[in-house]
Amino acid sequence: MTKDQRKLQIPVGVRDLLPGEAFRKRSLENAFEKTFRTWGYNEVITPTFEFYDALSIGRGAEEEAQLFKFIDRQGHILALRPEMTTPIARLACSKMGDWRRPMRFFYMANVFSFEDPQAGRQREFYQSGIELIGDDTPFADAEVIALAVELLKESGLQNFQVSIGQVDILYGMMEELGLPEDQVGRVKAVITNRNYVGLQELLEEFKVPEDDKDRFMRIITTHGGRGVIQEARQLARNAKTLRALDILDKVYEALLAYEITSSVEINLGVLRGLDYYTGIVFEGYSSYIGFPILGGGRYDNLMEQFGVTCPATGFALGMERLMLSLEREGSTPEVAVEPDYLILYQVEQAAAAYKKARELREAGFVVVTHQVTDNASTAESIPAKNVIGV
Amino acid sequence: MTKDQRKLQIPVGVRDLLPGEAFRKRSLENAFEKTFRTWGYNEVITPTFEFYDALSIGRGAEEEAQLFKFIDRQGHILALRPEMTTPIARLACSKMGDWRRPMRFFYMANVFSFEDPQAGRQREFYQSGIELIGDDTPFADAEVIALAVELLKESGLQNFQVSIGQVDILYGMMEELGLPEDQVGRVKAVITNRNYVGLQELLEEFKVPEDDKDRFMRIITTHGGRGVIQEARQLARNAKTLRALDILDKVYEALLAYEITSSVEINLGVLRGLDYYTGIVFEGYSSYIGFPILGGGRYDNLMEQFGVTCPATGFALGMERLMLSLEREGSTPEVAVEPDYLILYQVEQAAAAYKKARELREAGFVVVTHQVTDNASTAESIPAKNVIGV
Repeated sequence: MTKDQRKLQIPVGVRDLLPGEAFRKRSLENAFEKTFRTWGYNEVITPTFEFYDALSIGRGAEEEAQLFKFIDRQGHILALRPEMTTPIARLACSKMGDWRRPMRFFYMANVFSFEDPQAGRQREFYQSGIELIGDDTPFADAEVIALAVELLKESGLQNFQVSIGQVDILYGMMEELGLPEDQVGRVKAVITNRNYVGLQELLEEFKVPEDDKDRFMRIITTHGGRGVIQEARQLARNAKTLRALDILDKVYEALLAYEITSSVEINLGVLRGLDYYTGIVFEGYSSYIGFPILGGGRYDNLMEQFGVTCPATGFALGMERLMLSLEREGSTPEVAVEPDYLILYQVEQAAAAYKKARELREAGFVVVTHQVTDNASTAESIPAKNVIGV
Repeated sequence: MTKDQRKLQIPVGVRDLLPGEAFRKRSLENAFEKTFRTWGYNEVITPTFEFYDALSIGRGAEEEAQLFKFIDRQGHILALRPEMTTPIARLACSKMGDWRRPMRFFYMANVFSFEDPQAGRQREFYQSGIELIGDDTPFADAEVIALAVELLKESGLQNFQVSIGQVDILYGMMEELGLPEDQVGRVKAVITNRNYVGLQELLEEFKVPEDDKDRFMRIITTHGGRGVIQEARQLARNAKTLRALDILDKVYEALLAYEITSSVEINLGVLRGLDYYTGIVFEGYSSYIGFPILGGGRYDNLMEQFGVTCPATGFALGMERLMLSLEREGSTPEVAVEPDYLILYQVEQAAAAYKKARELREAGFVVVTHQVTDNASTAESIPAKNVIGV
C-alpha cells in the first residue's frame, strides 16, 4: 500500500458510517436508551483503552489472542476494550463498593477485536447492553432476557428467537462421564459450532461408552419449549446438571410471566464463547444471519478477580448485526436526507431568512438557508422538499 | 505499579463516567442531535483508529507529537483519531465525490491525544461538532458560528462568549513586516498563549521597527464589537490583512442578522492551534475555565491533501469542558438515580408484577421489579420514590 492509498483508505476491519446508516444506528440507540432507563438501568462510560491486565481477565487463550494490544510511551501494555462486561465489573469493584445492590447499568460503546476480517467480522464494532449486578436469583436472569427480547421487538425486527442454555449442564455432564477438565475448551468449541460429527468423534476419543454418548448428544442437541427441560431431567444423572436444569426451569417460569415465551426457546447446546459465564447463557438470532445478534448470561465469578464476590448477569447486542438483520428483513426505515425547507435569500434579507429558519426549526423542521447571488446555480443544486424565499 | 493495581486502576489521562455524569453527557448530546438535524446536518461516524498517514495530515510538528500512535500486527502505523475534521475530510474526499454540495455533517465522538495529563488535559475526551463542506462564503462561516452559539445556549450555559478572528490578519502582518515565514509557529504560539511580553521580545528579535511593533501589538490584542474591525483597518497596510478584515466584517454582519452579536466578540488575537485553518477562526469560552469550550474555523486547503479542492468550515465542542463549565455555573441538572416505582412481588404474582411494570414503563416511568422472599432485607435496601406491591 502506498502512502497515498493509506491517506484515502481506512484499515481492514473498520468502517465509515455514512448518514443513512449513522441515522439508523442513532435512532435505535435513542429508542434503546429510553427502554433501558424505564427498566431502571443507568448509563456508565469506561475508557476506550485500559491496562491489558484488566481487560484480559476472564478471557481464554483464544479470546486473549483477539485483544487489540499496544504499548504506550511509558511501556505499559494497553488494549482497546473487546467488550464492556469486564470494564464495568472493574468499575463496579473499584468505585462502587458502597453502592446499594442490585445495580443496573447500560452502555452503548464501540469495542474492538483483532479478528480476521475475512470471516466477516469487524475489528471495531458497536454494542448496546446491560449489566445487572448483585442479584443471584433466576428472576435477575429472566429480567435481562426479557429486556433483550424487548429491545429486539422495539427495533422492529420480526423474525428472531432467543435461545437459552446453562453452562453447568455441560460441566455436569463432563463431570459425570469423567471427561478431562482440560478438554472442556475443545468440547465447547465443537458444540458452539454445532459440529455434532466433531462432538461424536471427541466423545469416542475420550472412550465414552455408547449409552452415555447418546445421552450426551441428546441433551446437548435438544431444543424447544419447557418440555426440553423435562426431557433432559430424564437423561441427566449428575447433581450439577440437574441443578442447572432446575434453574433453567425457574427462569422459564418467569419468562412465562413476562409473556415472551413465544420469542424464546430452551437450547441446551447454547454455551457462549467467553470463559467467564457460570450459569444461564443466551443468544438472540435473527433468521437472516448466521451469527448471534446478541449474547449474554450470568458471570458470578468474574468480579472476584477484581477482589469483590458478587453475582452478576447481562447481555450485549451487536448493533451492526441487528442493523443487517433489519435490512435483510426489509424493515429498514426510510432516511430523510433532504431538508424540509430550503430558504433562499438575498444578502439584504438575511435577518428575515434566519428568523424564518429559527421558527421552522423550533417547530421541528429541518431547514437549510442559502444566500443566493446572481449565479443561482449552486442554490438550484441543493435538494429540498420545499424551497421558499423571504 | 503492580499487576493487581493495573487490574483495578485505569491508565493516566482516561476516565470512567459514572451514571450522573454519563446522564448529563447523553442529555446534552440528545439535545445537540436534535439541533444539528434541524439545521440540516447529518451524522457521520468514522473509525476510532486510522492510518497514521491520514490522521497526521494538517498537523504541525507539535500536534503530530500528540498523536496516539501504535503499530498493528501487520506492521502498519495506526493512530487513534485526535479530532474529527481530518477523518471527515478523508471520508468526504474518498466516498462523496459525487455528492451535492454544500454538505453538512455532524459527529459525536471520543478522540485521543497523547497530552501530558499534568496540565489537566485528558488522553481520551468527547467532542460534538459539525463540518460544512463546499461553501466558501462568509455566510457559511456565520452559520457555523451561529450554530455553535445555539448549542451553548441550549446547554443552559449562561456566561459564555465566542471570540472570532481570521488567521490572515497575522499572516498579512508578517508578510508586511517581512518576518521570516518559518517563524510563524513561534509567533502564533506566544499570541495563542496571550504571552504579550513574549510577543514583544520576539518582534524585537526580528528587529521590527518600534512603530510597526506598536501597530502589530495593537491589532493582535484588540477585541470587542464591530468597531474593532474599523480600528484595525486604520492600522493595517497589507492587502491580505485588509481582505481578512473585510471577510470578518461580512461575517459580523451575518451574525447581526442571526441576532447573536451579544454572545460574540471580534478578537484579532484568536488564531487556533491547528495549522490547517485558512480563514475565519473562533473559540468559545465560559467564565469558569481557562481553556476554550469549543473551537473551529475555515480550512479551505485541507481537502486538497486528499486530492479534492473544496472549501470547508466547522467546529468541535469539548463535552467535558462544557460539562465542567455548567457544573461550576451551578446549572447542572439534578440526576434522578432512584426509580419512580419499585414493585415488590411474591413469586406467584410475577405475571401481575411484570404487567404493572410494563404499563408504568409505557407511561414513561422508571420501574424496577423485585421478587421478595421471607428475608426482605434486600428489597428494603433498594431506594425508590414509590414502593408498591401487586
